[in-house]
Amino acid sequence: MDEQALYQMTYGLYVVCAAHGGEKSGCVVNTLQQVTAQPVKLAVTVNKENYTTELIGRAKRFAAVALDQRADLLQIGRFGFRTGRDFDKFEGIETGKDQSGIPYPTGCACAFYSCRLMDTVDLGTHLMFIGEVEQAERLSEEPPLTYAYYRTVIKGKTPKNAPSYHEGQ
Amino acid sequence: MDEQALYQMTYGLYVVCAAHGGEKSGCVVNTLQQVTAQPVKLAVTVNKENYTTELIGRAKRFAAVALDQRADLLQIGRFGFRTGRDFDKFEGIETGKDQSGIPYPTGCACAFYSCRLMDTVDLGTHLMFIGEVEQAERLSEEPPLTYAYYRTVIKGKTPKNAPSYHEGQ
Repeated sequence: MDEQALYQMTYGLYVVCAAHGGEKSGCVVNTLQQVTAQPVKLAVTVNKENYTTELIGRAKRFAAVALDQRADLLQIGRFGFRTGRDFDKFEGIETGKDQSGIPYPTGCACAFYSCRLMDTVDLGTHLMFIGEVEQAERLSEEPPLTYAYYRTVIKGKTPKNAPSYHEGQ
Repeated sequence: MDEQALYQMTYGLYVVCAAHGGEKSGCVVNTLQQVTAQPVKLAVTVNKENYTTELIGRAKRFAAVALDQRADLLQIGRFGFRTGRDFDKFEGIETGKDQSGIPYPTGCACAFYSCRLMDTVDLGTHLMFIGEVEQAERLSEEPPLTYAYYRTVIKGKTPKNAPSYHEGQ
């Protein structure tokens, strides 16, 4: 298998967020996508070790934002390379809240989605959450941040928990 | 719900292919993605009415290519807007075959994947197929075709069976 072939798939970058019992967290993913139109359902795949995964499972809801090209490594690193178990990822940054109270970052995001969890698929190292969209809003007119832009322009790395992580990348 | 928010998600364009009992077909999707790294698994979501969906279910395998920017409306239309039930989509174009004999188009594709079906998720109008990658190869050095490029540069439409289809789009 030529791993370079895997890098030819196209992704955006998103922060998926969850909250339950006073706890809240969010993490960067490249796996959000719309999977049906009637009703509008999104799927998102998250590493089982992530605190956000645990909170989505407990709350049966998730929110997400599509990052835009204003996002820099500092903002991505806050959600992508630190755990929310002992750190409030939302402190000191601009946030919104969905109808259920899940916080989400608004400073470098072009769209926001809020979903009710409909199904969970066990993929081994990761869980895929499938949710029906209950809220969706534009947050900015900036172009969406693609994974290709993140890698080539922002010079970002891929964290170990990502589906697309490979040694020596 | 602001549908414009849904268009802020980033996708590539792919042809997913299947063959069973002498029948073969393929269709254009924007939903292929890598969902785990160990082992490497891909997920792809396809409308239940598509002939390719039926053949994947029967053969328990699928192949896919990532389209590159050489793809034009004629090539995309062959796989995206016609059914393979009464038309050989592979006739007269350059093709390869995966190890199981599934044909795939090579003329405007930058990567190829062959997967063994591991799981099927019922999403209502669509099925999501999750497969473990058994073959993956680069086919060209051309940049991958993104859905944004297809819509804005090639001026392509979205077929009715796509997860991202909306009336009046």
